[in-house]
Amino acid sequence: MGQNLIFTNHVQEAINRLAGSDGHNLTVWIADVNTARYAPAEAHVITIPDGDENKTLSTACHLWDEMERMGVTRHSLIINLGGGMVTDLGGWAAATFKRGVRFINVPTTLLGAVDAAVGGKTGFNYNGLKNEIGAFAPASDVIISTRYFDTLPVQEMKSGFAEVIKHAMLSDREELLRLLDHDFNAPIDHDDLLERLQHSVQVKADIVARDPNEQGERKALNLGHTVGHAFESLAIHRGHPVPHGYAVAWGLVTEAVLSHMLLKFPSEDVHRLGNFVRDNYRYFPFTCDDYDDLLALMRHDKKSRDGEITCTLLAAIADYRIDQTVLPDNVTAALDILRDHLGM
Amino acid sequence: MGQNLIFTNHVQEAINRLAGSDGHNLTVWIADVNTARYAPAEAHVITIPDGDENKTLSTACHLWDEMERMGVTRHSLIINLGGGMVTDLGGWAAATFKRGVRFINVPTTLLGAVDAAVGGKTGFNYNGLKNEIGAFAPASDVIISTRYFDTLPVQEMKSGFAEVIKHAMLSDREELLRLLDHDFNAPIDHDDLLERLQHSVQVKADIVARDPNEQGERKALNLGHTVGHAFESLAIHRGHPVPHGYAVAWGLVTEAVLSHMLLKFPSEDVHRLGNFVRDNYRYFPFTCDDYDDLLALMRHDKKSRDGEITCTLLAAIADYRIDQTVLPDNVTAALDILRDHLGM
Repeated sequence: MGQNLIFTNHVQEAINRLAGSDGHNLTVWIADVNTARYAPAEAHVITIPDGDENKTLSTACHLWDEMERMGVTRHSLIINLGGGMVTDLGGWAAATFKRGVRFINVPTTLLGAVDAAVGGKTGFNYNGLKNEIGAFAPASDVIISTRYFDTLPVQEMKSGFAEVIKHAMLSDREELLRLLDHDFNAPIDHDDLLERLQHSVQVKADIVARDPNEQGERKALNLGHTVGHAFESLAIHRGHPVPHGYAVAWGLVTEAVLSHMLLKFPSEDVHRLGNFVRDNYRYFPFTCDDYDDLLALMRHDKKSRDGEITCTLLAAIADYRIDQTVLPDNVTAALDILRDHLGM
Repeated sequence: MGQNLIFTNHVQEAINRLAGSDGHNLTVWIADVNTARYAPAEAHVITIPDGDENKTLSTACHLWDEMERMGVTRHSLIINLGGGMVTDLGGWAAATFKRGVRFINVPTTLLGAVDAAVGGKTGFNYNGLKNEIGAFAPASDVIISTRYFDTLPVQEMKSGFAEVIKHAMLSDREELLRLLDHDFNAPIDHDDLLERLQHSVQVKADIVARDPNEQGERKALNLGHTVGHAFESLAIHRGHPVPHGYAVAWGLVTEAVLSHMLLKFPSEDVHRLGNFVRDNYRYFPFTCDDYDDLLALMRHDKKSRDGEITCTLLAAIADYRIDQTVLPDNVTAALDILRDHLGM
């Protein structure tokens, strides 16, 4: 994989150093309508619309066409400046143009920084299915910065923070407890947050380096996501989408409960996590009438096999077990406990 | 890279062994209108049109749509059965569907066997540019067989044979001399040809294994192609396309002449090669009025840089030098000699 991670709030300096190192004939930035303003004034910028509904083949074609028009070659450099949609689509377009142009990711959201920008997953939605077409193609470098976060809505910060919590659950109880003290109402402490990000992103990068193509261990990063994706899809079907990280937060609690039921994950940690999620992620209104739909969605998860529901579970913080089969009865029991805990 | 190469004329047995080894939930074949008949009667087959004009994003979308409809998952197996277009497009569709489904290439043409099917280059033409969009994505296995060649037109055999000659020029003078004795009018000796293929494909596979993403040594495989591609493009512009391998054959002679001029490649070997090409690949009618067009095309080669013409040249058989800059005057002198040699 060999993805170079740079943690800094001096982004342009870092880019200049990287871009100057390899005699590129042209540097092109890819941004969305919100992030294009962060590119330097004299930069060549391709701007795409924002919103998951535009994460499509048609937007990818627009990127290819513009790269062609600007004269991008195999010796050029692409800089993806934006959230997960920009790094997913821009990474895809760069990785497939002339079979691969070097690209750097500069995530501008917390969720992008701790999730999409690192690890080489690129692609787009197709035929109504999320990330159905794509490639494993790592950015040569990822520049992680908190400088774009001051203007992010708190909901966006919370959404990304759920993935930060996930990484701590996979690696370090002390870090997890520190995170569960976080106050979203306080102004951002950039030095501290950059340190938290350094810890968090490294957890992901280490796991990805050992299993770039998701044959085994990388599934650990799926913690909270089997159940979380089901919440996310149900919300979409209802016409009231929820932020990805909120669904993940509820998924993390549900899977922590499952971990307690099946692998004796300590109930103390279930409660700490549950309290933080209750206090910061307003609950998702569902009843036992939704259980069948949720179970069906879990069975159709991209990572499931033969119609069984599989999760990554924890025997303890940092002690993860991939490919755990859970029975529908386990799941419904865990959902009951989640609803209790969130006070539904 | 780790591409498993299997040389056999018992193709179905080999496929059964490979397909059975990994608990695939579904096997889907991709073929074109000519090769679909080689698939087993009970197979799930996606058929695409033939012809380079159909090597497009639209055909790739058709493959994705059909894979979706048939229920292909990450645990399925794709078998690409056909020439270079099927393995390039089928490999692309498999490599990008759900970020990667395992695929096996079964080339049915000599050119496919010695070139397209091995080495992981996949993709399609875009905006009128050949292989403009694509990915480096190796088939897990390539089954090389001569059993489909009996019904190939001799022109197709000759086209593929030019790449076989190229591989011998890069590796083994004795093998090259054996090849230059080949008689295209004789019926195919399957055992002998399979042995020649084994030698030839291994040359490519070894080079690709050392440099899968074409950062350096892989450019050796470009021997004959800087000039060859220019012939091929000129013929397309004139409305009279020539088979790829014919253009490569003329390119090999021209670049052998350049190698003699610049690196003292033995004139004896230039003549042996030139005679074989004169006798078997009818010449491409061009005059000195075409030189400027040919030079312009060489400067626009995907591998060129800063408008210079670069070739892979030989100091001797098996002693190749990549990234050799050649001057326009060298090229025109070599083209004069080629025209002389081919009796134009």
